[in-house]
Amino acid sequence: MNGPGSDADRAARVALTWLAEPGNRAVWTMVQRGGAEATLDRLIAGDIPDGPLRSAVAARSRADDPRRAAEIALRLGDEVGARLVVPADPEWPARVSALATLETDTAGRVNQDTRPPLCFWVLGSLPLGATLDRSVAIVGARAATGYGVHVTSTLAYDLAERGWTVVSGGAFGIDAAAHHGALAADGLTVSVLACGVDRPYPVSNAALFARIAERGLLISEWPPAAEPFRHRFLIRNRVIAAATAGTVVVEAAARSGATQTMSRVLALNRPAMVVPGPVTSAMSVGCHELLRAHPATRPVCSAHDVLQEVGRIGEYLEPPPRGQERVRDRLDEESALILEAFPRRGPATPEELAATARLDLRTVLRRLTLLEATGLVIRTESGITLAPRKP
Amino acid sequence: MNGPGSDADRAARVALTWLAEPGNRAVWTMVQRGGAEATLDRLIAGDIPDGPLRSAVAARSRADDPRRAAEIALRLGDEVGARLVVPADPEWPARVSALATLETDTAGRVNQDTRPPLCFWVLGSLPLGATLDRSVAIVGARAATGYGVHVTSTLAYDLAERGWTVVSGGAFGIDAAAHHGALAADGLTVSVLACGVDRPYPVSNAALFARIAERGLLISEWPPAAEPFRHRFLIRNRVIAAATAGTVVVEAAARSGATQTMSRVLALNRPAMVVPGPVTSAMSVGCHELLRAHPATRPVCSAHDVLQEVGRIGEYLEPPPRGQERVRDRLDEESALILEAFPRRGPATPEELAATARLDLRTVLRRLTLLEATGLVIRTESGITLAPRKP
Repeated sequence: MNGPGSDADRAARVALTWLAEPGNRAVWTMVQRGGAEATLDRLIAGDIPDGPLRSAVAARSRADDPRRAAEIALRLGDEVGARLVVPADPEWPARVSALATLETDTAGRVNQDTRPPLCFWVLGSLPLGATLDRSVAIVGARAATGYGVHVTSTLAYDLAERGWTVVSGGAFGIDAAAHHGALAADGLTVSVLACGVDRPYPVSNAALFARIAERGLLISEWPPAAEPFRHRFLIRNRVIAAATAGTVVVEAAARSGATQTMSRVLALNRPAMVVPGPVTSAMSVGCHELLRAHPATRPVCSAHDVLQEVGRIGEYLEPPPRGQERVRDRLDEESALILEAFPRRGPATPEELAATARLDLRTVLRRLTLLEATGLVIRTESGITLAPRKP
Repeated sequence: MNGPGSDADRAARVALTWLAEPGNRAVWTMVQRGGAEATLDRLIAGDIPDGPLRSAVAARSRADDPRRAAEIALRLGDEVGARLVVPADPEWPARVSALATLETDTAGRVNQDTRPPLCFWVLGSLPLGATLDRSVAIVGARAATGYGVHVTSTLAYDLAERGWTVVSGGAFGIDAAAHHGALAADGLTVSVLACGVDRPYPVSNAALFARIAERGLLISEWPPAAEPFRHRFLIRNRVIAAATAGTVVVEAAARSGATQTMSRVLALNRPAMVVPGPVTSAMSVGCHELLRAHPATRPVCSAHDVLQEVGRIGEYLEPPPRGQERVRDRLDEESALILEAFPRRGPATPEELAATARLDLRTVLRRLTLLEATGLVIRTESGITLAPRKP
């Protein structure tokens, strides 16, 4: 079987992303017109009208055969548990197609090559499209201040608690705080990487990435084992902007990666949000620059403000993919112990639960608050009981 | 002699302001049509179409005779060294006439009574109109934080150093920091009061008010001895908004006096500027509310940003009223001692100046920086010399 979604189509998309960096305007246009397989055939045959693309393809082809490289990537993907998602798949995130008509400036190749992805590598069990439907990107400086980390964690926690997926890039600072905040709320978070999902960068965030893969998603346009070259972060940023209902920049130095992401958000006419900060802080200079330079950029101070901006988009979408069972599957160990500590019938007190679960009372009280918020337990006058399981 | 600017006109304006609070729409309309003297005659005769005004005039008239009250105010003004400025005077600040056509909302009398002042009481030697031509208002919370005070002082200093007059309301917190900052730059500052210029409020800012009267201006629509009733601050705010080229709010709690001032600025289509702050600070909530609620409100982080907003207005105006001689007249004692310490001819070193003036070296160095900025001394390779006096 050939055509969109077939094994040949999937392999061709991997090979094309290997031959030219994602977002390449010429490659994407050819795929739109003739499909991925035919495009790969043309590129291998050297039938390439675009000069820079011809050179890039020639250079890559000298290193390896594109079809063989795709085969290796797909095998490696299987080994690390990553799946390939292509536009023909039901879980393809619809919003990224907005990149097809993105008005771009002419300041260099990176700015011209902002076309939609040909494929995504995904690590994690949630369906990609549904997870991104109600999503907000939170991005910002790596060298974040205590203020920025605090505001980001709170914002991500509150958004995740309200059922919104928090999307970020997995970097130090604001990105990490955004993922951490969403995880703390037992919510969904997606890290969009500029390298293989099997080797997320930076390595020192490994524990964080492991939790994201377990309870959210690690995604990338690049195949497993791909390296996080510097220019890839800028290419990646267009996906963060396009896949989400809106983007919040929390802290950013002047003319930084976060402000580049925001230029994509503005070009896509998506809610472009900025958290103000002290004007005395170098890490808020980029934020205030955005607010001053682009009247469409909106200041936001809380999850409430963010939802005012993206709400109109979110309310017409499907409910988030978090059924009760799924929440239960994603519970941390302490919460799971507490649930197991409940008697078969009737209520329990926090003290009884703490004794049975062999946890300290403070932990139990904190976890109970989260378990109650997710609807797994119910507080009654006589104590706390397990919520009846929904069919 | 009768008519605009005559003694009778002046006394009538004082009497009218005594009979009804400043900004009263009915009184101002009558004055525009028939002049102040005729309006006073009509009010005393009880020929008042406006019901609320009729009651107010009746109540005031029972307390005293309006003409006698005006006489007492004018005599008291003479005693405290305050002068009365009326629209016929050359130093009348032209910008306040914009209040004549201010679109106002209907939420209560204070909001309806936003018509231009009938007169100003002024304490200080600078001409009122020229001093306000290149002026920026900086207002904000009384309960300012260290951040707000720091940003305000810096902003006011930088604006004053660039020849802009800093206008504020003399209150604790942001207002006081704005006046202090301008004075520290040896610049001009105007305090717009909601009570008599002879008894500026709050009393604990007395030393600050004394310096403002000496080197800037204290102004008020209310006669000497008038009390700072609470509602007068809201009436006063329209003058701060209308007399300046633009207004900056530095810190403001939710729905505070500063945000009320800003609603006037926006209604006047003047640059409405807000300094962002930490979203975690209660004292920045009003600022961020303004930015979110009114797209015309612009975030500003520095004097540079402020001048970008008001610059277009300022550059077509006359240069500020600070000739070299005037600067010399307004020097603080230490700077005056340093100038006297210079030798008749040739340069001196800071150390020599410190010894002659009997001041410590640090003070001398700090003052020399300011004296150099004002053009009174020149730094050369061989040392520091007095600048040649301009004709």
